[in-house]
Amino acid sequence: MNTYSSKLLEKAINELSKLPGIGKKTATRLALHLIKQEKQESELLGNSIIKMRSEICFCKNCHNLSDDEICDICQNPKRDQTLVCVVEDIRDIMAIENTGQYNGIYHVLNGIISPIDGIGPDDLYIESLVEKVNKGGIKEVIMALPTTIEGDTTIYYIFKKIKGQDILVSTIARGIAIGDDLEYTDEITLGRSILNRRPFEE
Amino acid sequence: MNTYSSKLLEKAINELSKLPGIGKKTATRLALHLIKQEKQESELLGNSIIKMRSEICFCKNCHNLSDDEICDICQNPKRDQTLVCVVEDIRDIMAIENTGQYNGIYHVLNGIISPIDGIGPDDLYIESLVEKVNKGGIKEVIMALPTTIEGDTTIYYIFKKIKGQDILVSTIARGIAIGDDLEYTDEITLGRSILNRRPFEE
Repeated sequence: MNTYSSKLLEKAINELSKLPGIGKKTATRLALHLIKQEKQESELLGNSIIKMRSEICFCKNCHNLSDDEICDICQNPKRDQTLVCVVEDIRDIMAIENTGQYNGIYHVLNGIISPIDGIGPDDLYIESLVEKVNKGGIKEVIMALPTTIEGDTTIYYIFKKIKGQDILVSTIARGIAIGDDLEYTDEITLGRSILNRRPFEE
Repeated sequence: MNTYSSKLLEKAINELSKLPGIGKKTATRLALHLIKQEKQESELLGNSIIKMRSEICFCKNCHNLSDDEICDICQNPKRDQTLVCVVEDIRDIMAIENTGQYNGIYHVLNGIISPIDGIGPDDLYIESLVEKVNKGGIKEVIMALPTTIEGDTTIYYIFKKIKGQDILVSTIARGIAIGDDLEYTDEITLGRSILNRRPFEE
């Protein structure tokens, strides 16, 4: 038996519930919300999704999402082109940009080395990073990868590929998060944060 | 500073985050998911939303969502047109249809009487229900409204309007939900369920 009196509604609910984390109930709520709103709202939403998917591309330089061949960050003359931050995916760029603390460019690997998931170095944008480094002009490569075995493996793999060049390879600081209590911090993090202690700055 | 390297992405995220219960983070996750999927998926989603909003209408008979002037339920000759179930909104129809236990038609009030929210009888589709009853041909009106003061007020108001006609007005059974423990049931529900006890059927 068909629960929906409208096939148009049913179709929209089916499409919405294909999205990750959205089940039938949420999809129904969203569809009924859209029906209550102005027609224009649904057109803005629908068209922005279609247009995004059909026109968006990846930056040829850093593999970030972009509206053009080269993304806004790589094109920006105010950004330090000698500083490259290596990240796992596009969401990491958003997170770092949100901090407002970074002024270099990026390089998206599109994953990290993970034999369990069948992801090897050749599945990632590592070769284009090595080429970029070999071309010269880069002073520092910052590894902003997850602090997991997979992340560390990827860092080590890339390090071996680009060492010997006259560049600094660094990793982002690991330690106790701002606002965290020492007693609730895991031993490995706490141990590392003692080893990697820094001189107090007045 | 702009956190998104793509204006297309930013626009889609902005539109998605206008939906109820969807914040910037979820909207970003949904947009990045769509980018990973086939182009066709985004077109199906976008177009189904636009088409639904522009073509959907309300049934002239019962005020349910419909693709035509009269909805599938009212048009269905297999459904009992002498039995009308009065509900608060369209979601209630979906819930009742899901049970597969009802074979009559519906009447959507589009709300219930609630002075606190400024909703009076004239804001609801009560007049069209009264007209439908006055026209004749209806044997029973089932009130499937919330078991709240507002719900009870609405039932009483409608009852006063349609009484005198040769029809049965009933309310859906209230009592202990299937699977519930007696000791955790509130007193009012438990009290009512004792008063409204039914003969045991073998």
